[in-house]
Amino acid sequence: MKKKDKVILMDHGSGGYRSEQLIRGHILPALGNPLLDRLGDGAVFDLPVIDGHGTRLAFTTDSYVVDPIFFPGGSIGSLSVNGTVNDLAMCGAKPLYLSSAFIIEEGFPVSDLDLIISDMAKAAERANIKIVTGDTKVVAKGAADKIFITTSGIGVISGTPFCGQCMEPGDKIIISGTIADHGIAILATRANMELPASISSDTAPLCHLVEKMIKSRAEIRLLRDPTRGGLATILNEIAENAGTSIRVDEEAIPVRKEVSALCSLLGIDPLYVANEGKLVAVVAAKDAEKLVALMRNHEMGQNVSVIGEVSQPGLSKVIMKTRIGGERIIPMLTGEQLPRIC
Amino acid sequence: MKKKDKVILMDHGSGGYRSEQLIRGHILPALGNPLLDRLGDGAVFDLPVIDGHGTRLAFTTDSYVVDPIFFPGGSIGSLSVNGTVNDLAMCGAKPLYLSSAFIIEEGFPVSDLDLIISDMAKAAERANIKIVTGDTKVVAKGAADKIFITTSGIGVISGTPFCGQCMEPGDKIIISGTIADHGIAILATRANMELPASISSDTAPLCHLVEKMIKSRAEIRLLRDPTRGGLATILNEIAENAGTSIRVDEEAIPVRKEVSALCSLLGIDPLYVANEGKLVAVVAAKDAEKLVALMRNHEMGQNVSVIGEVSQPGLSKVIMKTRIGGERIIPMLTGEQLPRIC
Repeated sequence: MKKKDKVILMDHGSGGYRSEQLIRGHILPALGNPLLDRLGDGAVFDLPVIDGHGTRLAFTTDSYVVDPIFFPGGSIGSLSVNGTVNDLAMCGAKPLYLSSAFIIEEGFPVSDLDLIISDMAKAAERANIKIVTGDTKVVAKGAADKIFITTSGIGVISGTPFCGQCMEPGDKIIISGTIADHGIAILATRANMELPASISSDTAPLCHLVEKMIKSRAEIRLLRDPTRGGLATILNEIAENAGTSIRVDEEAIPVRKEVSALCSLLGIDPLYVANEGKLVAVVAAKDAEKLVALMRNHEMGQNVSVIGEVSQPGLSKVIMKTRIGGERIIPMLTGEQLPRIC
Repeated sequence: MKKKDKVILMDHGSGGYRSEQLIRGHILPALGNPLLDRLGDGAVFDLPVIDGHGTRLAFTTDSYVVDPIFFPGGSIGSLSVNGTVNDLAMCGAKPLYLSSAFIIEEGFPVSDLDLIISDMAKAAERANIKIVTGDTKVVAKGAADKIFITTSGIGVISGTPFCGQCMEPGDKIIISGTIADHGIAILATRANMELPASISSDTAPLCHLVEKMIKSRAEIRLLRDPTRGGLATILNEIAENAGTSIRVDEEAIPVRKEVSALCSLLGIDPLYVANEGKLVAVVAAKDAEKLVALMRNHEMGQNVSVIGEVSQPGLSKVIMKTRIGGERIIPMLTGEQLPRIC
């Protein structure tokens, strides 16, 4: 295929391998700069110094195109606030302000818009942030599917920054709770399955949990939220950025029984399914136990688990000890498993 | 029509009367707060004081859904950078950082994406800002029309803030150049008209002009960019917010001859057509002449014109002295004249 014949595939929006190809092959060469090149959940920068004092901020954006727009546990409204709040929290920032831009299809019910906005208001209150600016565009029927919401967020970073570069063999990898809840709730809703009440999106703000983690003064190397592409993709990104392998233990990864059963039924690996209220932390081994205890006492960390550790430098692989005692390499997501999951 | 049967109309995205109804009737009641309620081009706030020093920021967002995505004078790429840069400039801020979130339709040509990104890079360089964070979502063919881009921006405000509340009778109203260029370029392209080279979008960054205006220390009451809804809508918003009437002189409003001719042909009033590189300034009468001279010497202000003045408090109307010597009230845009103009 000639270069000029290339088209965007669903896969380019997966958050996995092809997304990265698009970003590294097309976006960074034109728009790259030291802040963008880091490809974090948000950009972190110091404001120009005024009167000798700078301020460190985090800035992030995400478009939400989730389908269906209402699902067990949330809606595109709560998701669009929590998702951006969480991206700020992953930068170690206290979220302050959000913007919200709507693209709405002509004919969309105003009552549905009201429900979505009400969910945004509730999520904003829960995260203790304010939506301070916005935009609304309407496109003709058929030019967009129902509603898309893009939120951007600003947060302030104080205290010691995380140090991804300080990662070393033996550092522990922690997940704050069960995986795959969000993606499976969306997928099951799409399939019109009758769901037990326990299957529901985990969309929620992580900022309060992160604030507590930072205050503990544990040596946190980095935080990431395993959204699109799931836990497997985030672990691969961490391994790649750090230039070290990561070993995880399948048995230690918390998955709800019902979610696990649905994954089997649908032929989907929960490691690749999106989460919207979970975080992955890499922390110094000496602080892991203390941090886990603290997280378990927080409503957002009740099912926290140490799932593995940083292994040898050199190879950037994610290796999983399976339940039956074998080992397998967990690759980054290739192909779009679950389009429009967030 | 019962409330629950109401649907979103194209008109709700016009930037005019119905847009305001949607915002005031549905968005502000749920999400309102002192910053959002101001409904400016962006939110302006002080960061929490750290070590006794605060920093004043502007924060803004806009979704771009322009159709066609390439047009004389620009593309959705340059528009999405310039538009957000200009919203920051209208807050009196020096734009610093932008985020960029893409929603792309499956099957979109990667070569077109490259052109768009290249336009964004050029626009970013011209405005002297950096795009520091982003997101890419892909939706199935038919779930979005080609590509939508949402940019958000952060800028720093230093020096004396504008004082919209200080507006008083006699203050001059200035437009930085010819109106209706952007909207007419889009519309004529859609109609497949053969265009003279002089018909082209005015999409451009206003930040350097604004910086010069602020440095002049002229008493600027406020700046606004007349995008969706055009000059007429912005003048109405200014009159409404200030609680005073505004008088403008039709003859003083600069419109290119070719643009004016096309407006007549298409049956469109240029006062309601979108601009993407023009600003409206309300300034103290004593400083108007000095400011106009300064603006005329800047590439973005060559056709600057004093188009009217602030009149009596009380009535919030925009009154135009017509070319033939009569007077008419210029209402806010009602109905969607030009969908997907930006």
